[in-house]
Amino acid sequence: MAKSSKAAKSTKARAAGAKPATVELRAIKGGKLSSKQADANPTASRRDDQPVIALDLPPVKLSPAMEAYFRKCQEKLGFIPNVLLAYAFDNTKLETFVAFYNDLMLGPSGLSKLEREMIAVAVSSQNRCYYCLVSHGAAVRQYSGNPLLGEQLVMNYRAARLNKRERAMLDFAVKLTSAPWSVEDADRERLRRAGFSERDIWDIAAVAGFFNMSNRMASATDMRPNVAYHGQAR
Amino acid sequence: MAKSSKAAKSTKARAAGAKPATVELRAIKGGKLSSKQADANPTASRRDDQPVIALDLPPVKLSPAMEAYFRKCQEKLGFIPNVLLAYAFDNTKLETFVAFYNDLMLGPSGLSKLEREMIAVAVSSQNRCYYCLVSHGAAVRQYSGNPLLGEQLVMNYRAARLNKRERAMLDFAVKLTSAPWSVEDADRERLRRAGFSERDIWDIAAVAGFFNMSNRMASATDMRPNVAYHGQAR
Amino acid sequence: MAKSSKAAKSTKARAAGAKPATVELRAIKGGKLSSKQADANPTASRRDDQPVIALDLPPVKLSPAMEAYFRKCQEKLGFIPNVLLAYAFDNTKLETFVAFYNDLMLGPSGLSKLEREMIAVAVSSQNRCYYCLVSHGAAVRQYSGNPLLGEQLVMNYRAARLNKRERAMLDFAVKLTSAPWSVEDADRERLRRAGFSERDIWDIAAVAGFFNMSNRMASATDMRPNVAYHGQAR
Amino acid sequence: MAKSSKAAKSTKARAAGAKPATVELRAIKGGKLSSKQADANPTASRRDDQPVIALDLPPVKLSPAMEAYFRKCQEKLGFIPNVLLAYAFDNTKLETFVAFYNDLMLGPSGLSKLEREMIAVAVSSQNRCYYCLVSHGAAVRQYSGNPLLGEQLVMNYRAARLNKRERAMLDFAVKLTSAPWSVEDADRERLRRAGFSERDIWDIAAVAGFFNMSNRMASATDMRPNVAYHGQAR
Amino acid sequence: MAKSSKAAKSTKARAAGAKPATVELRAIKGGKLSSKQADANPTASRRDDQPVIALDLPPVKLSPAMEAYFRKCQEKLGFIPNVLLAYAFDNTKLETFVAFYNDLMLGPSGLSKLEREMIAVAVSSQNRCYYCLVSHGAAVRQYSGNPLLGEQLVMNYRAARLNKRERAMLDFAVKLTSAPWSVEDADRERLRRAGFSERDIWDIAAVAGFFNMSNRMASATDMRPNVAYHGQAR
Amino acid sequence: MAKSSKAAKSTKARAAGAKPATVELRAIKGGKLSSKQADANPTASRRDDQPVIALDLPPVKLSPAMEAYFRKCQEKLGFIPNVLLAYAFDNTKLETFVAFYNDLMLGPSGLSKLEREMIAVAVSSQNRCYYCLVSHGAAVRQYSGNPLLGEQLVMNYRAARLNKRERAMLDFAVKLTSAPWSVEDADRERLRRAGFSERDIWDIAAVAGFFNMSNRMASATDMRPNVAYHGQAR
Repeated sequence: MAKSSKAAKSTKARAAGAKPATVELRAIKGGKLSSKQADANPTASRRDDQPVIALDLPPVKLSPAMEAYFRKCQEKLGFIPNVLLAYAFDNTKLETFVAFYNDLMLGPSGLSKLEREMIAVAVSSQNRCYYCLVSHGAAVRQYSGNPLLGEQLVMNYRAARLNKRERAMLDFAVKLTSAPWSVEDADRERLRRAGFSERDIWDIAAVAGFFNMSNRMASATDMRPNVAYHGQAR
Repeated sequence: MAKSSKAAKSTKARAAGAKPATVELRAIKGGKLSSKQADANPTASRRDDQPVIALDLPPVKLSPAMEAYFRKCQEKLGFIPNVLLAYAFDNTKLETFVAFYNDLMLGPSGLSKLEREMIAVAVSSQNRCYYCLVSHGAAVRQYSGNPLLGEQLVMNYRAARLNKRERAMLDFAVKLTSAPWSVEDADRERLRRAGFSERDIWDIAAVAGFFNMSNRMASATDMRPNVAYHGQAR
Repeated sequence: MAKSSKAAKSTKARAAGAKPATVELRAIKGGKLSSKQADANPTASRRDDQPVIALDLPPVKLSPAMEAYFRKCQEKLGFIPNVLLAYAFDNTKLETFVAFYNDLMLGPSGLSKLEREMIAVAVSSQNRCYYCLVSHGAAVRQYSGNPLLGEQLVMNYRAARLNKRERAMLDFAVKLTSAPWSVEDADRERLRRAGFSERDIWDIAAVAGFFNMSNRMASATDMRPNVAYHGQAR
Repeated sequence: MAKSSKAAKSTKARAAGAKPATVELRAIKGGKLSSKQADANPTASRRDDQPVIALDLPPVKLSPAMEAYFRKCQEKLGFIPNVLLAYAFDNTKLETFVAFYNDLMLGPSGLSKLEREMIAVAVSSQNRCYYCLVSHGAAVRQYSGNPLLGEQLVMNYRAARLNKRERAMLDFAVKLTSAPWSVEDADRERLRRAGFSERDIWDIAAVAGFFNMSNRMASATDMRPNVAYHGQAR
Repeated sequence: MAKSSKAAKSTKARAAGAKPATVELRAIKGGKLSSKQADANPTASRRDDQPVIALDLPPVKLSPAMEAYFRKCQEKLGFIPNVLLAYAFDNTKLETFVAFYNDLMLGPSGLSKLEREMIAVAVSSQNRCYYCLVSHGAAVRQYSGNPLLGEQLVMNYRAARLNKRERAMLDFAVKLTSAPWSVEDADRERLRRAGFSERDIWDIAAVAGFFNMSNRMASATDMRPNVAYHGQAR
Repeated sequence: MAKSSKAAKSTKARAAGAKPATVELRAIKGGKLSSKQADANPTASRRDDQPVIALDLPPVKLSPAMEAYFRKCQEKLGFIPNVLLAYAFDNTKLETFVAFYNDLMLGPSGLSKLEREMIAVAVSSQNRCYYCLVSHGAAVRQYSGNPLLGEQLVMNYRAARLNKRERAMLDFAVKLTSAPWSVEDADRERLRRAGFSERDIWDIAAVAGFFNMSNRMASATDMRPNVAYHGQAR
């Protein structure tokens, strides 16, 4: 699986050179990093796969907003999530992606942030997406305080001890992933009977839909997750 | 397949009441409406499926920017694409969706607008998405001036007389749709050999990924395409 | 997707030379051609894909019965359906095909001609058959007077607003297409509960079965539909 | 899996009452019945599953031609193939089926009768059709004089020791069965390279297509094969 | 499908040279061989496919226990099942396989030996395993005294006239084979409602699981069944 | 997903009461437990899922050999792998399973122990088996000293940076898992070209086959992995 040699240099260079400062990555601000993990980060970042993606896309100079955002990531998380570095070859794409993502995963919703991350992982498991399973599996472990739940959703969500609401939510998201053409009124009714509102149903669909996009961006580009995720919240 | 009775009123009401004025819908500005089609629109809009989606999500007051955008749609197209009405229950979601979509499908790219629409239809065919096949099938007919091409991509892209570049592009998009976990370096190399740049590969993946999201939003909500699309560019 | 060069000449030659006169093609006699479409036919026929199929099978001299049949097609429809030209390399095969088809689709049955065409399209959608979706999609539009219904059955029959009888009929036909080994008594009972007689069930199966054959003949030979179908009954 | 009680009487009655006399069933005239098998037939016919199909379709009075045909079957084979009894509720359908079948499987072709039966079994194995695997599995055993070949094609044609021509033929038939939408020029070229003519390719497709129809008729109606087939040519 | 030339000699040599004497093959001791079959064996063994598997694995000197076991096979069955010859390149593997197999298929259980063989065949049909369908299809014919049952389970277990207990058992085994990740409490409950004990459920799973292993050993090595199986208990 | 209430007590009771002493579990003797993990075990074992499986199968008195084996597990690992507790309702089954497993995974082979564990995880990922992914994922982390490799094989083995030999090995194992009927000479030749011997090919098949069995035992019984595995070798 040797990477094509030309698809590597610029992204790598940027990763090394990036020196952000005071960003908050909204995507995971709910997660607490233990001091042990914080210590581990310098090591971890040295071991990150390079390049971040298998396409040779030189970084552009970031807009002040995005530069500030990257700084906050580095400060709060100890690293910049590789998906952001992947989009950084184009400021507009980076900004629309970040806006879309942050509203979806962190904005107001009847779904808790944990529930949204659970959908992300169950969908990514169907699509066998390495990047998303690593990064959002870590988020499920963090938000839930239950490391096993993260593993179960990565491996087979049916093995998790879910309550009725969670199971209905993930059944819908997984069916929407594997056979979207077959989703019909009966499926929406099942969510309503499990207590979800009209807006909740939209949000379940929107998160499931988004990761069906993101999983494919990651697979299409062989996006590599930051090594730091692996150790988080075990 | 009766719609759940509660999921209908507000969206419908809004559709009727909407009186936008001077918007340009960038998504299809390349398409020319014949005078015959323009005449047909009043009729067509009376026959549009109601409600637009099978979820009862009352519209919010649109931001001035979105209001202007809707007006331009009405003026240029004779109707507001239902996907926009579907998102109009939440200004932030509508705006991030529009920004994301317009950059992707109309922004600068090595892929022509027609090529991007071809990917949209080939992906939507895999997912059997009624909304996207109708609306983007129309766009392929318009951009290409070849009504048969639109039909072929809806039915089976392998039946279309594609050049080598187009075929490689759609093979990648369809594989990324049906088995994203199996996309590897050899697939990217095939695109490079067909003449695509690194950035082009990103764009092919991004369009394919986006419609894997949008197809699922449409299926999850039973989104109904505007009737006017059916007659366009036949 | 260049056609193998040797597979083309004879069928093409015949298509050009054919000058039939007074046939009635029973298969679509229910469909009314608007004067606009009739006008369009000379143009359309000039644009028909050539050759009709990707096999080089020289036409034989037709029997008087088949010659008369071809003349009636030309007179009533303005063209000879390409599937007939495809079989015209062998009189016996052409005649047994026409007899089988006409009894099935136009003979006495508890299913209306529209219902039989609906099954044809739903099955052909499962098999993604370009030829049959184009020609029988046009028939659904004609018989139903509802252009959208034709499109919906081509794209995803679950998106159509079907009554209970129609839905049961298409669910059976589609299951029989995609997983024939799994059809059992419960499936037949579902048809009986929807009001179908024993003979109706046979007919549903027979139409679904036939298009599972025809779809494969078309795919195996890359059969191209007459261009005139595209514009019919929009 | 109890049969619905109403779907049984008439077909059964007819089967018992049928007393044909001097027919030749062309479909299997090449098969030689050993005297041991002939002796076994009275026993076998007593054990035949009843009814022949799970639909209650009373027989009609057969046309003289069909009556003569049934007599010949009884005389030559010792039984009337159940598929013929199944169609005997309607003379036109029976006749068009017989004409279509006999031309296809017994008419002139570059494919030997054994090769056509091999395709029948390989296709029926993909569709897991009990009726066709039993009846055409017997035909392969008879025509080939190789009982194991019949079993291998029923179970997994890849396990048979096929020559290059046979393997190419069955690969095409099986692909056309399981993924007809994906058959393209390269597949036809593979057949040409294995020595098949244009007409041979049509015939391979026609036999594969036909059994995709017949398999579905059998599954849709729970058609039961005559018990006599089981012991033939072991 | 030519075998790689180097993968043949040693196993073949051993098969010829093996002269076992007084073994009882527990696996099929319940089956009665008719005198006709016994007579046929010398012939049959001459026609056995050689080599037994497509890997060149020279036989070792068997342990006294295994030597005695092989002798009993030859004495009772008239041949040594090829699966035993396949494992005979390693005494430990042969012994652990035989011990595992004999406990599973012949040891104490709430499932009859016939029921265990029925599972074996239904699972092997899903996996299209030539070796196991031939050898265990023969066992079903023998244990049941119903040759048709063996054929039906090979072809499509849904075509067999099963009682409720048998159908529940095979439905579970087949689901466990084709989609093990989807087996949940509801599936186990269905078995309990059909009268199976906790231990019976374990045994159903264990037999189904075992043949999912054995089928793959046979496919991976192109294991050939002894010809004698084909004629047994027809 | 509530467990059926009756399926729980005996296995649980045994787990608590078990007090083994000096066993070596050969299966994982290569793995080193850090002192931190050893400390964590008391905690971990308190949190183990109960019951071990969803079937109520009371333990029997173990044979002295198995009792000794369980003691060694406890001593060396700090816990008894739940798969052993699951089989402990029957001494013969436990012993044949242990003998089969230990020869396969720890006995002499041209495949390293790590390679065998890699196959175990890649196969279990195809089958989405929670138990095996957790326990053998831990083994891959331990044997390889590369925590990421374990995660990659769990999620999508194509995302791992494998050498040519490893990739060929896992491609074969995964194909054998998902489509065993399609494995043929060309697949074995690919392994030979990657440097594997005849015996190695047998061993790859045997490990892949075994986990296709084990995965199904775990799914059929809802087997729960010991919590201690989750933290090992991160």
